[in-house]
Amino acid sequence: MSADSPAANLVLVRHGQSQWNLENRFTGWIDVPLTEQGVAEAHSAGQQIREAGIEFDAAWTSVLRRAIHTLWIILDELDASWLPVQRDWRLNERHYGGLQGLNKSETAAQHGEEQVRIWRRSYDIPPPVLDHEHPDHPRFDRRYSRIPAADLPAAESLKLTLERVLPCWESEIAPALQGGQRLLIAAHGNSIRAIVKHLESISDEEIVELNIPTGMPLAYTLDAGLRVVERRYLAGEAAAAEAAAAVAAQGRSS
Amino acid sequence: MSADSPAANLVLVRHGQSQWNLENRFTGWIDVPLTEQGVAEAHSAGQQIREAGIEFDAAWTSVLRRAIHTLWIILDELDASWLPVQRDWRLNERHYGGLQGLNKSETAAQHGEEQVRIWRRSYDIPPPVLDHEHPDHPRFDRRYSRIPAADLPAAESLKLTLERVLPCWESEIAPALQGGQRLLIAAHGNSIRAIVKHLESISDEEIVELNIPTGMPLAYTLDAGLRVVERRYLAGEAAAAEAAAAVAAQGRSS
Repeated sequence: MSADSPAANLVLVRHGQSQWNLENRFTGWIDVPLTEQGVAEAHSAGQQIREAGIEFDAAWTSVLRRAIHTLWIILDELDASWLPVQRDWRLNERHYGGLQGLNKSETAAQHGEEQVRIWRRSYDIPPPVLDHEHPDHPRFDRRYSRIPAADLPAAESLKLTLERVLPCWESEIAPALQGGQRLLIAAHGNSIRAIVKHLESISDEEIVELNIPTGMPLAYTLDAGLRVVERRYLAGEAAAAEAAAAVAAQGRSS
Repeated sequence: MSADSPAANLVLVRHGQSQWNLENRFTGWIDVPLTEQGVAEAHSAGQQIREAGIEFDAAWTSVLRRAIHTLWIILDELDASWLPVQRDWRLNERHYGGLQGLNKSETAAQHGEEQVRIWRRSYDIPPPVLDHEHPDHPRFDRRYSRIPAADLPAAESLKLTLERVLPCWESEIAPALQGGQRLLIAAHGNSIRAIVKHLESISDEEIVELNIPTGMPLAYTLDAGLRVVERRYLAGEAAAAEAAAAVAAQGRSS
């Protein structure tokens, strides 16, 4: 590792293109796979981490396969499939409620362009709630069977997403970092936003404008109090900004 | 699930062909990948479990990629990549000491046919110890850095392998089963032998003759005291016996 490239102790990676990104549909908690492009983005992320010489003691991910597969591909690129991995539902993407599965034009036709913009770009206005009896409701999904029903979302604003990500950060991830572990987190646009907002004290107004690029490892060096000493995209700031602009131009962030 | 096919609460799967199985070399703790055939065997194992309608609450594997990748492929076949996974070095293959990397004819030329037969087929005679300074010694491998040096093997007989697998069984796996969890274990010929010997009270003499077929899920129904109520190969006993005979004919079991 070169002198101007200090060891990171936290690296965040947003998964790459999924099947419903490709189809321009709201995905949320629907468990869609990566596309070939998404797989390629994960390999690229792993190669960037390997070339930066960053090592980890453990990894975290959500319970959605597009993040899990991204992690697996990165671990293979790092020759580290043996690393302990924690899956936590609280690192899932924002739950997009009744919009899940709809594409943008369907949604605009049904609810109007302005309403859709509000759901996508406001901080605290959740989309329509997924019906309690809908087969996609998380209460019917075996992977959430041990989660108290009252904790399971049926629609989340970005604010609500942050409010369930942060307890995972506070109770699990932060103590591991403070115990000296170097962590890799493979997750989603909005669960990563939650962590970035918390670490960098970003305001509610600014966070909705912050787009996390896909497949671009964001490396933090944190001190013992988990204050940011350094943060950098391994691909460089210019490449990350370009990729983030492309995400913004897609028109939606999940 | 049919009435004559009760739910299993423990399924054991031995990984399929690895690169050094193919090259007929002693593998042990060397972290070689699966071959294409090994990948196909893992898919077949996953399909058998899916078709049997068996579900799991958690999975266990070793810290060697041939077992981890086998598990990942099975989880994908089960649509269950979200399952919690525990990796434990104590589920590794038998450590083959100074024989690791050698092929059978090299080994016979160096040590004699009879000596090689003893190392491969005795219960309690370990192979030559891997030199403490050899770069393959586990003490140089980052994945074992948290294991007390005195616990790391440099050569194991089948007996020594059992003696490090069983503490993992007793302290981790058995309590999970007794807590009602249904478990999948993807591991190695000799770590699976250790569990089978323990569960079925197989003698020291018999266990060396027992060959575990690769990629063939072995399903147990255990009672609250972890006594065996039923055990069956999902592919059927005849297919499993044929595959086990093929393993025995290969001439070595790791």
